[in-house]
Amino acid sequence: MSFLVQKFGGTSVADPERIENVARLVGNAKDKGHDVVVVVSAMSGETNRLLGLAGEISGNPSKREMDVLVSTGEQVTIALLCIALHKHGYKARSYTGAQVKILTDDAHGKARIQHIDDKPIRSDLDAGNVVVVAGFQGVNEHGEITTLGRGGSDTSAVALAAALTADECQIFTDVDGVYTTDPRVEPKARRLDKITFEEMLEMASLGSKVLQTRSVEFAGKYNVPLRVLSSFAPGEGTLISYDNEEQDMENALVSGIAFARDEAQLKITGVPDQPGVAARILGPIADANIEVDMIIQNTGANNCTDFTFTIHRSEYDRAKAILISEAEKLNAREVQGDDKIVKVSIVGVGMRSHAGIASKMFKTLADEAINILLIATSEIKVSVVIEEKYLELAVRSLHEAFGLAADKEE
Amino acid sequence: MSFLVQKFGGTSVADPERIENVARLVGNAKDKGHDVVVVVSAMSGETNRLLGLAGEISGNPSKREMDVLVSTGEQVTIALLCIALHKHGYKARSYTGAQVKILTDDAHGKARIQHIDDKPIRSDLDAGNVVVVAGFQGVNEHGEITTLGRGGSDTSAVALAAALTADECQIFTDVDGVYTTDPRVEPKARRLDKITFEEMLEMASLGSKVLQTRSVEFAGKYNVPLRVLSSFAPGEGTLISYDNEEQDMENALVSGIAFARDEAQLKITGVPDQPGVAARILGPIADANIEVDMIIQNTGANNCTDFTFTIHRSEYDRAKAILISEAEKLNAREVQGDDKIVKVSIVGVGMRSHAGIASKMFKTLADEAINILLIATSEIKVSVVIEEKYLELAVRSLHEAFGLAADKEE
Repeated sequence: MSFLVQKFGGTSVADPERIENVARLVGNAKDKGHDVVVVVSAMSGETNRLLGLAGEISGNPSKREMDVLVSTGEQVTIALLCIALHKHGYKARSYTGAQVKILTDDAHGKARIQHIDDKPIRSDLDAGNVVVVAGFQGVNEHGEITTLGRGGSDTSAVALAAALTADECQIFTDVDGVYTTDPRVEPKARRLDKITFEEMLEMASLGSKVLQTRSVEFAGKYNVPLRVLSSFAPGEGTLISYDNEEQDMENALVSGIAFARDEAQLKITGVPDQPGVAARILGPIADANIEVDMIIQNTGANNCTDFTFTIHRSEYDRAKAILISEAEKLNAREVQGDDKIVKVSIVGVGMRSHAGIASKMFKTLADEAINILLIATSEIKVSVVIEEKYLELAVRSLHEAFGLAADKEE
Repeated sequence: MSFLVQKFGGTSVADPERIENVARLVGNAKDKGHDVVVVVSAMSGETNRLLGLAGEISGNPSKREMDVLVSTGEQVTIALLCIALHKHGYKARSYTGAQVKILTDDAHGKARIQHIDDKPIRSDLDAGNVVVVAGFQGVNEHGEITTLGRGGSDTSAVALAAALTADECQIFTDVDGVYTTDPRVEPKARRLDKITFEEMLEMASLGSKVLQTRSVEFAGKYNVPLRVLSSFAPGEGTLISYDNEEQDMENALVSGIAFARDEAQLKITGVPDQPGVAARILGPIADANIEVDMIIQNTGANNCTDFTFTIHRSEYDRAKAILISEAEKLNAREVQGDDKIVKVSIVGVGMRSHAGIASKMFKTLADEAINILLIATSEIKVSVVIEEKYLELAVRSLHEAFGLAADKEE
């Protein structure tokens, strides 16, 4: 018998029929003798419907009232799921975030969880109930409804699993696990049985959309094993946990290939080098709320510096205008830019102890005549920026080179 | 400066545009210097949408979870109304029933209010806020969401007005007040400026649909002056309060003519009279959850009794079958029935001190050759049962006879 927290997102509970499907999945776990706490999102489309109603009234609605409004979405789902569980013969009780209570700070719309009261849930579980909790929401110390921001239901689930010391937090989505890379780009992509938190974090921040970065961080911090599963297809999904000594994570040096489209780069050349020049270049960019990803600085001839960074493509024009204005003040030579680039990364904890991974990556790309524009490395990943047109070729050749393809057609 | 509780029903908040209209009405009261607590229902159609979702899953949903589900309807409205009030420049804060808190018993779906905590609302009012409260809902001592049953938003408003000792509880509807009778039957019907609680109760229980009986009882019990107004047309509406000595309620002996269509009567004749016979006849009817309205017993010849009662027409067949089965056991002569009858009532506190009102009613009907089938009287009303086809004629002639028509066209 295990203690599971199961989280179902909006598409998994999109209509009464799918809610009954979720009741069956939860019932299966209960039949196996597990204790189950379920966390649900709003039915897909519901949050947007509510935002639309508010939008018809005001372009600048109060954050406090928006939380009161949108939190009804999950409240509808918890009631409907309990009704479905009852119909299938299971005892079940619903909880709003406030009822649990999931105590948060006052930051309406992006609140952070501070404490979870586990007593009422434990006593309901002891009485044989499935406990169904509204995701995405909490309550501040004044009893006001707060929300954790979009995608916050994953965070709710992980936080509940941590507070209740559950054995596993299972995130049910519309994909059946974490893949070596996006199967739409590489049809030979293979579902991973296991992956580490660190790898998952890199994959998530590098463009894999399976899980919210924040919930993975949270799970890692509190050591809550996470499992990604499909609501619609049976299977064991992918387990995300710490890398134990015994388990060498499938013996792979590289676990997956992540990539991010819609990147852009900006380069300012011939900047007279002096202390604080990086801050003077990036300060105005940060002030404009533009997120900078990779940053590379080369000191060149004549005591001058070339400075390159990447940003999301949608910020390209704005960032370029700022940089041109700064270039004048800094007496720099030139601003160059490219908004047709992508980032491809190899991720794997095995890199830590194995040299030669990066050079194998560079050689693989060179063999395909793919020019590398920028390189960034961390302990468990190597990222390269390349021209957009080479994206698919790069992903597939790296997938092949690192032996990630499925052994056979399944 | 007064302290007002204003209640707006589902049609008044049916869409964002109407919610903005409500914000303007509330704002007008605030501009006049009044303190305002607003109670709102779910947007019309919303409760039925939610019931429909549950109905797709189960024909017998848990009452606890249904309260969690349908209470979201009012929660959406309080948020949207606050957003609209902010837009129009007013400070406003929303409260769910649980947040107030409106403490109720455990009877999910038909809970009764036990206590209202007025402190948080008072402090918000003192800070210049409009306080917007979700109607229809409360919370039990275990923190579970309860609802007061359909139409319960009126009760929420009256209970809040009582707990906060408001000067007036204003119920905004789609009619502009209480009329001497239904204007669809008698175009000369006149809006009453004032009416007593007792009269309103009789009018409500006799078929006038303007207010829920329970909220009028509640208002009378706690002496909360009620005012019925239109959300859509300006005007003073109708004030419902106790009859003060000074005010003789417009000097009228009869305030209004109420009527109920869809009545039916059943008669069991030749029942050997013995103690407990009424209970033996009506017991099985009550056991079948059929509500009996008027009851008349005549002792006839041969120590036998005739026993007549009225019920809602929709229960006619069921009640008749029960009565036929009982008639055999009681050795009664016959069961008769008529499902084409209506009830017409004159209502007025003036009757208390004036004889001759009933006989004037009977004479008026006789002059029109309308046969009276049953009569029932109370201190402030006289009801007669007549054939359905005479309904309009009876209402109009009584309206005329008691001088209720508007003095002039307005």
